[in-house]
Amino acid sequence: MGKVTVLRLGHRLHRDDRLSTHVGLTARALGADEVIYTDDKDDAMLASVAEVAGKWGGKFKVSYVEDWKEPLKEAKKKKIKIVHLTMYGEPLQKKISAIRKEKNLMIAVGGAKVPGQMYIAADYNVAVGSQPHSEVAALAVLLHEYFKGKELAKKFPKAKLRIEPQASGKKVIAGDRN
Amino acid sequence: MGKVTVLRLGHRLHRDDRLSTHVGLTARALGADEVIYTDDKDDAMLASVAEVAGKWGGKFKVSYVEDWKEPLKEAKKKKIKIVHLTMYGEPLQKKISAIRKEKNLMIAVGGAKVPGQMYIAADYNVAVGSQPHSEVAALAVLLHEYFKGKELAKKFPKAKLRIEPQASGKKVIAGDRN
Repeated sequence: MGKVTVLRLGHRLHRDDRLSTHVGLTARALGADEVIYTDDKDDAMLASVAEVAGKWGGKFKVSYVEDWKEPLKEAKKKKIKIVHLTMYGEPLQKKISAIRKEKNLMIAVGGAKVPGQMYIAADYNVAVGSQPHSEVAALAVLLHEYFKGKELAKKFPKAKLRIEPQASGKKVIAGDRN
Repeated sequence: MGKVTVLRLGHRLHRDDRLSTHVGLTARALGADEVIYTDDKDDAMLASVAEVAGKWGGKFKVSYVEDWKEPLKEAKKKKIKIVHLTMYGEPLQKKISAIRKEKNLMIAVGGAKVPGQMYIAADYNVAVGSQPHSEVAALAVLLHEYFKGKELAKKFPKAKLRIEPQASGKKVIAGDRN
């Protein structure tokens, strides 16, 4: 398996904290290896995503760089393809088989105002439906398609907390049996 | 085709406005017919979701009831099955074929604190991965699985705005050719 990095564009302090948290947690839960936040530095938000990752296991990495162009340059150097999720892009259903062939991916998600350069830097500008909705939803559907649903059975080793699925109610157990 | 209603549990004024907006827009974009908001009444949030629906076409309905139990009672009366999305539930991959057989659905999504009664009222308590992430992501994956990806090609008649998908850049056109 390759490596999937999610690049969160244009985080704004306070205003975006919950959505950016959801971007990070969705990335982790649905099989990505890493999230990189950009723009405003938000230590509390970074810490909350990292805390969940620490408690619930796996090797998910959380980091921050101010300039969103840096991780893109790094990706290009390593010949990692860049998927930019945008409602203006080409339909996911037309692009997914090509994207699935990429062993490593960087997935860029806005962000209130995505600069025009992002569209140019991307190898794929991809739309999950050509309608306004949510970067969290778009990321979820892309990851689910990329991993063909197998991400839902992903193991998260060394978890301090683990859920035992229930038909009704909640059961959280300590320790790691993954 | 049947009818799919999304029930947003426990909206809190200001704190949840953007996530609840994303829940509504994701519901609309990925094939649901209706969103019902509950708990705090948030006219600005309701108006913003309704405004998007008005501009971008289709027949999506946006409404509010204070008591989240009312729409569930209505659904039960009409024998509409209720899917509650929760990280504590049974894996989606095990339940989706049964859920796909339901012609009509009510999909309940939390919400910071979901009351225990919700787990009892639900016909299916379903987890999109047994990890903490996002109700927006969970809703997106459920709808995508329920509609088998066909929702991405859904038409939205009588749109004032429409996107023409582009490999790079943005193209929004006026009028309706759906």
